[in-house]
Amino acid sequence: MTRSERAWEQFPPLVYDPDAGVLRLLDQTLLPFETRYVELRGAKECAAAIRSMQVRGAPLIGLAAACGLALDIAKDPSEAASERAAQELLQSRPTAVNLRWAVEAVRAALRGVSEAERTNAARRCAQALVQNEFACCAAIGEHGLGLLHRLADTPRARARGRLNVLTHCNAGWLATGAWGTALAPLYRAAEKGVAIHVWVDETRPRNQGARLTSWELSQSGIACSIVADNCAGHLMQRGLVDLCLVGSDRTTRRGDVCNKIGTYQKALAARDNDVPFYVALPLSTIDWNLSDGLREIVIEERDPREVLEIEGVGDRGRLQSVALAAPSSHAVNFAFDVTPARLVSGLICEHGIFAAEASELERLRGLARVAQDPAERV
Amino acid sequence: MTRSERAWEQFPPLVYDPDAGVLRLLDQTLLPFETRYVELRGAKECAAAIRSMQVRGAPLIGLAAACGLALDIAKDPSEAASERAAQELLQSRPTAVNLRWAVEAVRAALRGVSEAERTNAARRCAQALVQNEFACCAAIGEHGLGLLHRLADTPRARARGRLNVLTHCNAGWLATGAWGTALAPLYRAAEKGVAIHVWVDETRPRNQGARLTSWELSQSGIACSIVADNCAGHLMQRGLVDLCLVGSDRTTRRGDVCNKIGTYQKALAARDNDVPFYVALPLSTIDWNLSDGLREIVIEERDPREVLEIEGVGDRGRLQSVALAAPSSHAVNFAFDVTPARLVSGLICEHGIFAAEASELERLRGLARVAQDPAERV
Repeated sequence: MTRSERAWEQFPPLVYDPDAGVLRLLDQTLLPFETRYVELRGAKECAAAIRSMQVRGAPLIGLAAACGLALDIAKDPSEAASERAAQELLQSRPTAVNLRWAVEAVRAALRGVSEAERTNAARRCAQALVQNEFACCAAIGEHGLGLLHRLADTPRARARGRLNVLTHCNAGWLATGAWGTALAPLYRAAEKGVAIHVWVDETRPRNQGARLTSWELSQSGIACSIVADNCAGHLMQRGLVDLCLVGSDRTTRRGDVCNKIGTYQKALAARDNDVPFYVALPLSTIDWNLSDGLREIVIEERDPREVLEIEGVGDRGRLQSVALAAPSSHAVNFAFDVTPARLVSGLICEHGIFAAEASELERLRGLARVAQDPAERV
Repeated sequence: MTRSERAWEQFPPLVYDPDAGVLRLLDQTLLPFETRYVELRGAKECAAAIRSMQVRGAPLIGLAAACGLALDIAKDPSEAASERAAQELLQSRPTAVNLRWAVEAVRAALRGVSEAERTNAARRCAQALVQNEFACCAAIGEHGLGLLHRLADTPRARARGRLNVLTHCNAGWLATGAWGTALAPLYRAAEKGVAIHVWVDETRPRNQGARLTSWELSQSGIACSIVADNCAGHLMQRGLVDLCLVGSDRTTRRGDVCNKIGTYQKALAARDNDVPFYVALPLSTIDWNLSDGLREIVIEERDPREVLEIEGVGDRGRLQSVALAAPSSHAVNFAFDVTPARLVSGLICEHGIFAAEASELERLRGLARVAQDPAERV
C-alpha cells in the first residue's frame, strides 16, 4: 500500500463540506454490499444516522456529531437552538465517550463568542477535530509499528512467513475516518513491507467484522479471514495468533476497556495462551471520571431483534433481513463488555504505548493535559 | 412438565421402525421453522443425513448410524455389504466418537453370528443402543439434579427467584433422542419444581443454540433467552449465570473436553468469574485412547460457507440463505475446540459426577467396565 493507494481516500467515511452545508457519510449499514453516501444537513439527521448506525465507531461518531452540530449552528446560531441540537446528539448513543467529548469541544469553542461569530467558530472546531482525529490515528499507527515489527520477528511468525493478528469488531478507518485505531498499526506495518494476515472476528450480532473490517482490510490490500466469534480461543490454542489488537469505546483511568461485546472473552483466551492483547485508542476515548469499568460503566442494551434477525444479500442480490429463530423467541442484546485492565498488555495511543495501570495513565494524562482541554485543543 | 407432557415424545428426534424397514428422523436442518421427518432406508441415506446435519448431536449420530447399518443388513446380510455400509457411516463425520462406538457395537453383535441370524442380531443391537442411550440420559438428569438443587439454593439464585444456566450449542433431547445430556438435569429439575431460566448461546456458525436449543427448551416449557456467543462473558461478569452446562463430542481419559467451537471461551469466562462449569456426557463419549485433547484430537474443519452465509426465514416465510460478507471474502471454519480438563468443574455422566482428572476417570472406567465392551453392553 503506498501513500497514493490509501483506501480511505477512495472511500472517505466522513466528508464535511460546510460551504455546501452538508455532511456526507458512507452509509455503513449497506457495506460491504453497496457503497452509498448519505447527505446530512443538521444535528437531527446526524443523530438519526448515529442511532441507526449508518455512522458508527466511537471516534467517527464524535466527528459526525461535531460536524452535525456545526451545520445546525450555521442555520440557527442562537444558543437555545444549538443547545437543543447538542442534547439531541448526546442522546443518540449512550456508550461512546467521544460523542460527549466532541459535543463538549464545540460548546467550548462557542464560549464567549459573539452570535455573529458562532457559525465560524463551530465550523473551525469541527474541522480541527477531524484533522486532530486523523493525526491521532496516524500517530497510533506509528507507535504500534515497533510492536508489530518485533512480533513479526519471532521464530513462529518468521516460520509462518506472516504475522497473524486477531481483531474484533471494526476499529479501522471506517470507525475513525482515516487509518483507524486498532488497524492503524497494521496499515503502517503493511506500508513498511510486513506480511500480515488478520483473523477477523465476525462480531455478532451486528457482524461489523464480517461486513466492515473484512471489506476495509481487503480494500487496503491486507489478507484476512473471517472466523466465527467462537473460533478465536481455538486459534490461539493452536498458536495461530501472534497478537490481538482491538479498539475501545471507553477506557477508565485505571485501564479497564469497554469495547464491543465479546472483547472480554478474546482477552481471556489471549491471557490463557500468552498472546499479547493490545488496545489502540485515541486519548479522547479515556473517561477520566471512571475508575472501575465493571462497576461504573452502564452497558447499552440494544433491540433483541439484532440477535433474532440478520441482514444479508439474498438470491436476488437484494439486502434483506431473515429470522434466525422461532418467532416467539426471546433474546437479550448487550452491545459492549468491559475487559479488566489486568488482561490488557498495553494501550497504544497517540502519545505512545502505555501499561493499563492507573499510574501509567496518570503519566499519560500529564503528558497530554493540553489535549484534554477541548477548548485549548482545537 | 409432567411425564405425559415430555416434549420429545411429541417430536421424537429418531424413530427406528425395523418392521417397516425405515428410520424416521426429525430433520434438524429445518427446525425451528418446520417440523418435518425424513425417512431413511439404509446406511447410504443415513450417512448423507449425518453429513448434511439433518441428524446431529454426537449421541444421536451414533444411534442413527447403528439403525441405518441394521436396516442395510436386513437388505443384504453378507459380511462384505455390511462392512461397506459400516465404512461409509464411519466416514460421515470425523469428530464424534459415538459414531465409531455405535458402529463397533453393531459389528461386535454380528461376530460369530450365522448369516441367517445377522439381521436380527443387528436389529436387536440397534434397539438396545437406543434404549441404553435414553437410560443414560435419564441417569445424567438424575445425577445432575442434586447439583441444580444446590445451586438454586444459593442466596443469589434465591434472590433472583430462578436459577440461571448458560448452555452452548445443543445438548438436549434433539441431540440424543430423549432427555439430552447437558439439558437432562434441567428437565429433571423443572419436573421437580425448580424455576430455571437458560441463557442460550446462539452458537455460530450453525446457530444450533438459536435454532434448536431455544426451540427445544420452549417446547419443554423452560424459559430461555438467546444471546450472541460474545455475550456469555459479560453475563458472567454481571453475576447473571449460576452454572454453565454443556455437552461433549469427545472426552479424553484425563478429562479434556472436545465440544462445539466456542466452548473453551465459555469455560475461560466461567473460571474467571467463579461460575461452575460442568460437562454432561454419556460414557460412550469418552475416548479412552486419548489423553491430551489439544495435541491428539484432530478438529473438523467445515465449509467456509457456513460462516459466510446463513439460513433464516425471509419475508415470504421461506427458509433461505443470505450472504453475510462480500462475495470475495475468505473464511475459516473450525467446528470444535478443546476445553482443557483444568477448566472443567466436573463431568456428569450416567454413573454420577466425576472430577475431570485422569485418576477419577480411571475409577469411572472401572465402575463401567462392562458398559465399555460393546458386545457385552447390548
